[in-house]
Amino acid sequence: MAKQTRKRHAATGKKLQGLAQSVVKAAHAKRDPGIVIPTRALSNSVYDAKRKIITMGKGSQTRTFFNLGMARKFMQTMLIASGCKELNDQGKTTSIRDLFYHCKHTIEGTRENTFDEQSESDPIIEDLEVAIGSLREELGLFAENKGSMVGPMTIVDAGDTIDLRRMGSGGWSVPSIVESDVIQFRKHEARYVLLIEKAAIWKRFNEDRFWDKHKCVILHGGGQPPRGVRRLLFRLHNELKLPVYVLTDNDPWGYYIYSVVKQGSINLAFESERMAVPRARFVGMSSFDVGRFDIDSSVTIALKDEDRNRAREILKYPWFADKREWKREIEQMLKTGVKLELEALSSKDFSFITQTYLPRKLKDKQWLD
Amino acid sequence: MAKQTRKRHAATGKKLQGLAQSVVKAAHAKRDPGIVIPTRALSNSVYDAKRKIITMGKGSQTRTFFNLGMARKFMQTMLIASGCKELNDQGKTTSIRDLFYHCKHTIEGTRENTFDEQSESDPIIEDLEVAIGSLREELGLFAENKGSMVGPMTIVDAGDTIDLRRMGSGGWSVPSIVESDVIQFRKHEARYVLLIEKAAIWKRFNEDRFWDKHKCVILHGGGQPPRGVRRLLFRLHNELKLPVYVLTDNDPWGYYIYSVVKQGSINLAFESERMAVPRARFVGMSSFDVGRFDIDSSVTIALKDEDRNRAREILKYPWFADKREWKREIEQMLKTGVKLELEALSSKDFSFITQTYLPRKLKDKQWLD
Repeated sequence: MAKQTRKRHAATGKKLQGLAQSVVKAAHAKRDPGIVIPTRALSNSVYDAKRKIITMGKGSQTRTFFNLGMARKFMQTMLIASGCKELNDQGKTTSIRDLFYHCKHTIEGTRENTFDEQSESDPIIEDLEVAIGSLREELGLFAENKGSMVGPMTIVDAGDTIDLRRMGSGGWSVPSIVESDVIQFRKHEARYVLLIEKAAIWKRFNEDRFWDKHKCVILHGGGQPPRGVRRLLFRLHNELKLPVYVLTDNDPWGYYIYSVVKQGSINLAFESERMAVPRARFVGMSSFDVGRFDIDSSVTIALKDEDRNRAREILKYPWFADKREWKREIEQMLKTGVKLELEALSSKDFSFITQTYLPRKLKDKQWLD
Repeated sequence: MAKQTRKRHAATGKKLQGLAQSVVKAAHAKRDPGIVIPTRALSNSVYDAKRKIITMGKGSQTRTFFNLGMARKFMQTMLIASGCKELNDQGKTTSIRDLFYHCKHTIEGTRENTFDEQSESDPIIEDLEVAIGSLREELGLFAENKGSMVGPMTIVDAGDTIDLRRMGSGGWSVPSIVESDVIQFRKHEARYVLLIEKAAIWKRFNEDRFWDKHKCVILHGGGQPPRGVRRLLFRLHNELKLPVYVLTDNDPWGYYIYSVVKQGSINLAFESERMAVPRARFVGMSSFDVGRFDIDSSVTIALKDEDRNRAREILKYPWFADKREWKREIEQMLKTGVKLELEALSSKDFSFITQTYLPRKLKDKQWLD
C-alpha cells in the first residue's frame, strides 16, 4: 500500500473506531448508546449563494439503541461500520452489494436476519458517511466504473503510469474511487476539460482526435456522471486549474446534468464540497442552435408533458432563476416546444459536431454560465 | 488508416455498392428491384449439433419496391445502406442512434419522414447485416463500450500499444469493434481467459491481482456480454488457443449468459460463427456449492416463479438437454428452491472468491462443460 493510502486508511479507520468507542463508553456508563446522524433530506439542504453550491444544513437525528423503532437500524449501522472497518484493516475495496452480503446473517437462536434486502443496507451506508464525515470512497466502497477519459495527459492509477494520449479506441475506464492516493496527475498539455454527456458522442470526439487538435481532456459519464467522474472533474479543475465545459443534449435532463456538475445535487448535498464545480460552463445544445446552425426541423423532438414540467421546475432553481441567459434559454425551449439530441447534428455530417459545431461555439464564447 | 483496415473497408464498401448496383440494374431492366433478406427468427435458427453452435437456416424473404407493404422498408434499407457507405468512404465509425439521425429527414414536398423513430432503423440495420453478410462492426457501427479487461498481455488498440498488466484499477475498456484491424494481440503469458459476469466481482479479481498470480486474462461484460466482449473472447480462444472459463451467479440468468457465450443466441444466430466458443467451460456458482463450500443459508435467495420457468426452459435447450451433469445441476436448483449470487461468498471473507473458491474449483476441475 502506498504511503498516502495508508494515511487515508488510518484516518478513516480511526473515525470508525471512534464511533465504536463512543458506544462502548455509553454502555459502560449505563447510558443509552446513540449515533448522531445529520439529516439527508430536501428539508436539510441549503443553496449556499456565496459558494454557489448546494450544502447540507445543520439538522440531525440521534439513532439510539434503547428505542424499539430504532434498535434494528442501530444494530445495522454498527454492523456496516464493522464491515467497513474490516475492509479498511485489510486495505481492500468492495461494492455496496458485496458489503450487504458480508454483513448479512441470521441472528443466532432466531429466524431474524441482520439485513433482508440490499435496500436496507444502502441507506445505512449513507448514514454512516455523514455520521463520521467520510465519503463512501474513503470507506473503500466503489460503484461500477462508468465513464471514459482520454487527452494529452499522463496519470498514475493504482501505481501504474498511464498515458491518456495512447488509449486506443476504448479509452481509460474511470474508476469510482479517484482519490489522490489512487489517481495522480502527471505531465499534461491540456487547456480545458470537456465533459460529454454520452459515450457514443465521446467516441466521435475520440475517433476525430478532438483532444489532440484542441489540447483538452475529454471525459464522459454515460449520462448523469457517477461520483467518480464528478470527483475527477473536481480534481482536474481545482488541482490543475483547468476550466470545465459541459456538452449535453438540449433537454431538461441535459440542463440537470449540468446543474449537478456545477452545484451538486440535493440528494448528495453532503458531497458538494468535494464534487461540485461552480465555475463549469454549459456548451450543450441550445434551443437557439436550430437557427444558428440551420438544423433541419425533422430531427427535433416534440417536448412531452414531463419535459415541460421539468423545465419549469429547473427554471425555479435558485441557481438558474437569477440568470437572465438561462431564463431566456429555457423559455425558448418551452416556446418552440421541441428538444434536440447531440446526434441530430449528424444529419448534416458525421463530424459536424467536432469540426464545426463545438469549435465555433468555443471560439464565439457561446456558452451559458 | 492501417492497411488491414483499408482492406476491410474496401471489402464492405464493395458489398454495399453491389447492393445498390443490383437495384439500379433491375430498374434499367424495368424489373421490380428487390433485396433478399435472410429471415432472423426462431423459425429460421438451427442448432448445429456437430459444430455445437446455433446457426441461421436457409429461410429468406425478398423485399421489393413495388409492393405497398414493403415500399417504405425498401426505401429505408437503401437509405441505411447509403449512410453506411458514406461512413465507409470516410473511414469513420458511429452509433446506431447517430446513423438513425443521419438518415432521418422529411421527404421533399411531403410531410413524411424517412424514419420516425430509431425503433424503425435498428431492425433495418440487422436486415442489412444479413443481406450483405457484414457484421455491424464491419459496417462501422458501434455499441457502447461495456466490459473491461486486464491480464498478462500486450495488445494494440487503434495503433496504440497497451500493456494490460499496467491498467490500474480501471482496466482497459473493451470497445464494441474489436476486429483484427483495430485490436491486435502481442506478447502474453496468459494460460486461460476468465469471463466474469459482473463488474464488481471483476474488480475484486483485479484488486487481488488474480490475473498475475494465476496468469490469466480477466474480462467482464457487465452482465450479458455485449458483442465486442464476445467477439474478443472468440479471438482470444481461436487465435491464441486460450481456454475460456465463465464465472456467473447461480441463477437461470447465469446459465443463459454461459449458453450465449458457448452456442450463440437465437436472436443473433447469424453471428454465432464469429462469436460462439463451443468449448467454453462453466465455473460459475453451482447449487451444490452451498454444501461444498459450507455457505450460510441466510445468503441464498428463494427462486421466483420466473426463475423456475426459465430454468425448465433452459433444461430443454438441445445443448443442455443431452448433458447429464447440467441436468443434475439445474434439477438441484429446482429441488433446493434457491439461487446464489457470487457476492454471497463475501459472507465468509472479502477475498474468499479469489483465494479459495475459484482456485479450488479450477484445481479440482469442478466445471461443467
